[in-house]
Amino acid sequence: MIRFNCDYSEGAHPLILEKLAQTNLEQLPGYGADPYCVQAEQLIKDLCHAPEAAVHFISGGTQTNLTVLAALLRPYQSVISPDTGHINVHETGAIEMTGHHIVALPHQDGKITADQVAQVCKNHWQDENPEFSPQPKVVYISFPTEFGTLYSKEELFALRRVCDEHNLFLFMDGARLGYGLSAPGNDVSWTDIATCCDAFYIGGTKLGALLGEAVVLTNPKLQKDFRYIMKQRGAILAKGRVLGIQFLTLLQDGLYKKLGAHANKVALLIRDACKQAGLKFLYDSPTNQQFLIMPNDVLKKLEQTYVFSHIRPYGKNETVIRICTSWASHEEDAKQLIADIKQLLGK
Amino acid sequence: MIRFNCDYSEGAHPLILEKLAQTNLEQLPGYGADPYCVQAEQLIKDLCHAPEAAVHFISGGTQTNLTVLAALLRPYQSVISPDTGHINVHETGAIEMTGHHIVALPHQDGKITADQVAQVCKNHWQDENPEFSPQPKVVYISFPTEFGTLYSKEELFALRRVCDEHNLFLFMDGARLGYGLSAPGNDVSWTDIATCCDAFYIGGTKLGALLGEAVVLTNPKLQKDFRYIMKQRGAILAKGRVLGIQFLTLLQDGLYKKLGAHANKVALLIRDACKQAGLKFLYDSPTNQQFLIMPNDVLKKLEQTYVFSHIRPYGKNETVIRICTSWASHEEDAKQLIADIKQLLGK
Amino acid sequence: MIRFNCDYSEGAHPLILEKLAQTNLEQLPGYGADPYCVQAEQLIKDLCHAPEAAVHFISGGTQTNLTVLAALLRPYQSVISPDTGHINVHETGAIEMTGHHIVALPHQDGKITADQVAQVCKNHWQDENPEFSPQPKVVYISFPTEFGTLYSKEELFALRRVCDEHNLFLFMDGARLGYGLSAPGNDVSWTDIATCCDAFYIGGTKLGALLGEAVVLTNPKLQKDFRYIMKQRGAILAKGRVLGIQFLTLLQDGLYKKLGAHANKVALLIRDACKQAGLKFLYDSPTNQQFLIMPNDVLKKLEQTYVFSHIRPYGKNETVIRICTSWASHEEDAKQLIADIKQLLGK
Amino acid sequence: MIRFNCDYSEGAHPLILEKLAQTNLEQLPGYGADPYCVQAEQLIKDLCHAPEAAVHFISGGTQTNLTVLAALLRPYQSVISPDTGHINVHETGAIEMTGHHIVALPHQDGKITADQVAQVCKNHWQDENPEFSPQPKVVYISFPTEFGTLYSKEELFALRRVCDEHNLFLFMDGARLGYGLSAPGNDVSWTDIATCCDAFYIGGTKLGALLGEAVVLTNPKLQKDFRYIMKQRGAILAKGRVLGIQFLTLLQDGLYKKLGAHANKVALLIRDACKQAGLKFLYDSPTNQQFLIMPNDVLKKLEQTYVFSHIRPYGKNETVIRICTSWASHEEDAKQLIADIKQLLGK
Repeated sequence: MIRFNCDYSEGAHPLILEKLAQTNLEQLPGYGADPYCVQAEQLIKDLCHAPEAAVHFISGGTQTNLTVLAALLRPYQSVISPDTGHINVHETGAIEMTGHHIVALPHQDGKITADQVAQVCKNHWQDENPEFSPQPKVVYISFPTEFGTLYSKEELFALRRVCDEHNLFLFMDGARLGYGLSAPGNDVSWTDIATCCDAFYIGGTKLGALLGEAVVLTNPKLQKDFRYIMKQRGAILAKGRVLGIQFLTLLQDGLYKKLGAHANKVALLIRDACKQAGLKFLYDSPTNQQFLIMPNDVLKKLEQTYVFSHIRPYGKNETVIRICTSWASHEEDAKQLIADIKQLLGK
Repeated sequence: MIRFNCDYSEGAHPLILEKLAQTNLEQLPGYGADPYCVQAEQLIKDLCHAPEAAVHFISGGTQTNLTVLAALLRPYQSVISPDTGHINVHETGAIEMTGHHIVALPHQDGKITADQVAQVCKNHWQDENPEFSPQPKVVYISFPTEFGTLYSKEELFALRRVCDEHNLFLFMDGARLGYGLSAPGNDVSWTDIATCCDAFYIGGTKLGALLGEAVVLTNPKLQKDFRYIMKQRGAILAKGRVLGIQFLTLLQDGLYKKLGAHANKVALLIRDACKQAGLKFLYDSPTNQQFLIMPNDVLKKLEQTYVFSHIRPYGKNETVIRICTSWASHEEDAKQLIADIKQLLGK
Repeated sequence: MIRFNCDYSEGAHPLILEKLAQTNLEQLPGYGADPYCVQAEQLIKDLCHAPEAAVHFISGGTQTNLTVLAALLRPYQSVISPDTGHINVHETGAIEMTGHHIVALPHQDGKITADQVAQVCKNHWQDENPEFSPQPKVVYISFPTEFGTLYSKEELFALRRVCDEHNLFLFMDGARLGYGLSAPGNDVSWTDIATCCDAFYIGGTKLGALLGEAVVLTNPKLQKDFRYIMKQRGAILAKGRVLGIQFLTLLQDGLYKKLGAHANKVALLIRDACKQAGLKFLYDSPTNQQFLIMPNDVLKKLEQTYVFSHIRPYGKNETVIRICTSWASHEEDAKQLIADIKQLLGK
Repeated sequence: MIRFNCDYSEGAHPLILEKLAQTNLEQLPGYGADPYCVQAEQLIKDLCHAPEAAVHFISGGTQTNLTVLAALLRPYQSVISPDTGHINVHETGAIEMTGHHIVALPHQDGKITADQVAQVCKNHWQDENPEFSPQPKVVYISFPTEFGTLYSKEELFALRRVCDEHNLFLFMDGARLGYGLSAPGNDVSWTDIATCCDAFYIGGTKLGALLGEAVVLTNPKLQKDFRYIMKQRGAILAKGRVLGIQFLTLLQDGLYKKLGAHANKVALLIRDACKQAGLKFLYDSPTNQQFLIMPNDVLKKLEQTYVFSHIRPYGKNETVIRICTSWASHEEDAKQLIADIKQLLGK
């Protein structure tokens, strides 16, 4: 079977395994105090032009989201998220378990707007008893979104402004950041992200690492005591080197964006061919995730060879599926898939 | 000013104060072990024909909701609620603070249907990774709802059936139960509630008590260790007698339903007159809460004499207000209000 | 039976019931915004010479402790308490449920010292990985302690100094504050408490109220958003008047200290007589709680008439009991108890 | 510098890296559903003769402890632990953050006894208000303990019996399990552990894995819905293969115990030589951790070459240090250390 169902089907990019092996027998301090973590932190600060930032490495996305939000919120404060946000639909209520209400806003292509955020704040503070509902304090967005779409630079800065006006933190889930930064048409840079966000993370798991996310706290107020919160959530890895080495490898020499660009290229190949073949897409995604509507009979045949994610039924005879590529996807597999689709559709 | 803004503007029904005074110097055990609590518990079990039930007394509604849901849910389980449910909009995220996700369903007149609940469960269990979203376990409804409307006996039993099918608990917030039970057209009895619900509470605060809600746990599985959870949330009153005596007074000789009936009568007097005068209502409520659309100019003048709750603007020139009566409302005040409205509307 | 087992066996001081009845039919705003709460707040600020303080009223002690500590602590911070502190032994882990570790220090007569606190901080900050244990942030003490003993003014100010040195908050549980303030030999005043503590509460439940504790937040940094935390824990009473009126009554004309003084007087009568009769006491308490060692055969006979709290067995033939008086204790009952003890002891 | 300060200074055992590289490009399902996780689970069940057990893989120890305890405890229940237990002193209050009180018992050489546990339960249930303190429900022990010592088979079965008598779960923290199982004099087997414990984990991080702990739930009641709790705490790794492959490698062909035996051998070499040289040890440990008292002047010189953990000052002129070996320790380094110590001590 050829897997197009997610971007974490393989292990790690070979350079990562190589680097892990090379350094394997070095005796290093634990808990992220090793030189590789230190270098990776510096590299990230340089990339983002954010010398005041603090960087921490955490094993996975859900743990990162719950740890960062534990740090950003007081118990009675809430996080504003698109209703399709990962924290709202795919983390078993981890944020609520952490004690916080999620204000889930209707999304447009996976995104929310500054106006929507402003309205939430206005509604809250205009209530005669604001203290009877949770106080909005963080805006959570993903880049790319769950549907592979991107905020423009303009949209991102508009969110920053509304956060400033209403005393909110902006937190970006970058589990797939590399795909976004390298997407055709993207006008958002590392520096833009570091400038706009109080906190964000650089996803490793979905971009060629064995595991790991790099949290960047650009707002100095959030840096103090962050490691207490990490430790308390089980988010400090004893062998922190495993994360530091991986991020160092990924971020040196632009590998991270190269891996993203490759996956995007393969995905867009499939997208363009499917469009030509008359298939419809739910969102206009320039990145590695493509949501398309597939006739069930075609799907059934394809699934003898390929694995996709089923999103939901679409009417009686069609299904929305997600095709997802990665750093490890083969262009030939994509071409074969395209050929098979065309043939089955009789195009 | 004459207050029609809520049902807790006065102190307690005079009989309650009398009973508190009469028993004041009796030396009694604390924490709900006094004979008044014991008698009140028995009275409630008799009223509901629920000899196996357990009854506990708690100070207020939010504390009751969070305590009961802490008892009913494991950490990864969620509660299904109408989006307008009190737990979802008026308790500062107390349920999320307790660790639980609320599945907020679109309401119809403040209610949710058995079909909606079934759909949530189906969606959850059909997911290929159900453990990636919280597991639905409790259905939370209010009787009357936040808009004063009522579930019919048929609707209530349909919810019970869907709970049985999907292994859910049914929990009824009865903060205003007395208004519902005594409403014209209501076909739901104490026994129906005890039969259908695994847990519910009988509201005192909004029905003539100084404070207090009586939790009824009809499902024996929920009874064990409930007092641990109460104590841990600060929900066991040292002088439990204060709650026991009040519920004993309210529930003896049918006082509770009489107080509800009085408030309903006054509310419906206002409703019928306003309808005649051409005002529109958002919901068809047979109980003490009435949501109507009031021209802003009329409202402004009325508010020199009366206090209402503002719900939200309705277009540019009107406002949705809530008129709320109570056991203590005076029929003459209602008549004066009606006369004033008619005069201001020129009817 | 005559109850000497606790200080909440009766209802409320009669003046309180009177005042509740007098104001009962006044229509007032809810949630603590009524004029009685406002007046009670002002009265407390005047008493304490703390014009910048904020005052809030909460139903009971456990709820107060968990609400205040939720406000004072970030998730990874801990509270230092004597191991015998109420939060550590008598609240079903409410503080842990709130997410916080308690650093339980060995007590001396129910108290902890500034030196002990300093040592905890030193140990924490000298650790090479301080973030691997909770960060100490609050010192919790009771006045009087669980054993009826008192901090001297000097001890209290020493705790304040150590808190300043280590950036800690000082929080006093004053569930029985009135007994302490009116005790013979006490040199701590209202103003001392307000000066030394960042937060404290004035107990009503155990000093003649039906229920209620008045939280005083003297540190302005703690005041913002406190009501959110209250509401989220179910700690804002709808009919806030019930608490405001009671504290107004208790604190006007010095009633609060008078009630404390009466209870102390009765307790010391018993203490002195028992000492004369040769009985031993565990602690040297000048307040309403007395812990004494009673021969089991005498105890058994006394318990045909009186109720005491059993603390623990003391060897094979004796038991530590607590005798506890209150504002409502009768001097005659105490004299009868003394006579009975003497007779049974053959003195 | 040569590190003897912990057992996670190196990366992974080379076979693990090899196996990760070999399988790296296989496309596998995520979240622990890959064949390597499945095989590792089966291997563990075979090793333990526990065909009904369920096995889950988690990144680190703190996360494992908090996830398992979240699954084992209701909100008002507590866990009994030696006061030196990892959960009590080295996890930043993670268990309290999860909502639970830890009953910390005085340890003997890092262990607690069945009698101590029985006493806690007796005290709890004999209280006249048991619901005023957390209900003991889990016994947490470590094997080896934090001091390298071991429970004997007899001690372990005694704990099982007391758990059965008082309806408790027994949970073993096996972060260093391999060192215990392979220690000279140890009489506890895989099967004994699976028989006695309701849940335990097999530590990978401290025994040659890059990261990872394998949780074994032998009690079927604990298995249902465990993955919900994992996911909610961020404890399901997307690339579960990373953990499955490591445990498969470690547990095949007895590698795990071999690695433990090697570390123990090196540690005991040091221990025996130090004893001969007249140094004193705090505990009699047969495993890879040795706690000894070192003159400060000697220590200072040694620390020009070696890294140890400082535990605490011991009088004015000595320090308790921990010497910790691992699968990767070199016998020659140990011999050099011994020679250096002897020379510095003039032996």
